[in-house]
Amino acid sequence: MPAPRVIAFDADDTLWHNEIIFAKTHERYRALLAHYHDAATVNRTLFATEMRNLELYGYGVKGFTLSAIETAIELTQGKISAEEIRTLIELGRSMLAHPVDLLEGVIDTLAALTPAHQLLVITKGDLRDQQRKLAKSGLAGHFAAIEIVTEKDTASYAAILDRHEIAPRDFLMIGNSVKSDILPVLDLGGAAVHVPYPILWDHEHVEKLPEAPGRFFQLKTIRELPALLSTLA
Amino acid sequence: MPAPRVIAFDADDTLWHNEIIFAKTHERYRALLAHYHDAATVNRTLFATEMRNLELYGYGVKGFTLSAIETAIELTQGKISAEEIRTLIELGRSMLAHPVDLLEGVIDTLAALTPAHQLLVITKGDLRDQQRKLAKSGLAGHFAAIEIVTEKDTASYAAILDRHEIAPRDFLMIGNSVKSDILPVLDLGGAAVHVPYPILWDHEHVEKLPEAPGRFFQLKTIRELPALLSTLA
Repeated sequence: MPAPRVIAFDADDTLWHNEIIFAKTHERYRALLAHYHDAATVNRTLFATEMRNLELYGYGVKGFTLSAIETAIELTQGKISAEEIRTLIELGRSMLAHPVDLLEGVIDTLAALTPAHQLLVITKGDLRDQQRKLAKSGLAGHFAAIEIVTEKDTASYAAILDRHEIAPRDFLMIGNSVKSDILPVLDLGGAAVHVPYPILWDHEHVEKLPEAPGRFFQLKTIRELPALLSTLA
Repeated sequence: MPAPRVIAFDADDTLWHNEIIFAKTHERYRALLAHYHDAATVNRTLFATEMRNLELYGYGVKGFTLSAIETAIELTQGKISAEEIRTLIELGRSMLAHPVDLLEGVIDTLAALTPAHQLLVITKGDLRDQQRKLAKSGLAGHFAAIEIVTEKDTASYAAILDRHEIAPRDFLMIGNSVKSDILPVLDLGGAAVHVPYPILWDHEHVEKLPEAPGRFFQLKTIRELPALLSTLA
């Protein structure tokens, strides 16, 4: 394929660290419930609650906090104290107020790509959370547009490409989730680059990598992106 | 002013009922806390918590639910039971799953305006909540675009007009909140129609109506909109 005119970036765990914040919160959550249940039971039950609530709550910290409170009540059969629930609310608030830590190489890579490409952010989740993180990141100036959607599926990518008048063959998406960042874009005929993050939320797990020679690539770090693009030019 | 080419509608309490759902939830909330505090104290404290959390949570039911739980713990000095907190989570979920009840006259009015105008929705709040309500409303087909923002201020309206290449003199906004739907639009040089809803959230309260002859109008019901527009043509 030719070099893409438009390059879109996922945000959480592609531009900045995110799952690590959830992982630390999960650790404190398990500690809070440790005298009731083992870690595996807590993890499994919390994940089940999150999946049950996903349709209603969507992605994001507020929905996670509500699911964490609900799970804690269930797992303690109502014995959890109001003070402990207050701690859960505080945990959620700390996640929302957490500083944005950029991934290594992001600033240099965006600076290298900005002159020759139109850059977008395409991210799912809570509108306010994502806008706040983007503002805190200091990266907003690199992007022609920020697209925040409730679900990253083929239909939502198609709507974005349509709105910005981008042909799929001119479009390349970069992200850490094969499910959300890669498969729908390949499906539309675009190109996609997978840059794995050390932690992947179970919900985003897929069994195997796609096969799309010349349109699907995997890199260890975002730093390798300009070199990959030069091979496409 | 000439007849506007583009007409934008607020959603909550302009196209469909919303505050009434909050009002019913508040009533159940006060009943739950009635053996601890009088209604005025509950209302005042909940509103104070919501305002304190607004920057972090933004608008929407999930943030409201978290604020309601936090307030209940505070007002009962931690004596509220886990079971009662579970009831609050359920109250939040019922709000999210609530059917969308259109305001009287909305369907006829949109049908009358669609042939000659480009119609938009501009609403603030949670992305998923608002998209779900729009889908449930059955109204989506009338609108050229749906704009969901975290705050309806002059900057966010300016960004929307810019993105859609709409001159302010071609733009008319309709909504129930003078603060969010009227003042920023008049500020930009557009026109605005205030259609009050019987209940207004305290946060949206403004002291007095704007003065902008020929650009600001007040109607009792959305049904009067086509007649108003014909006087502008």
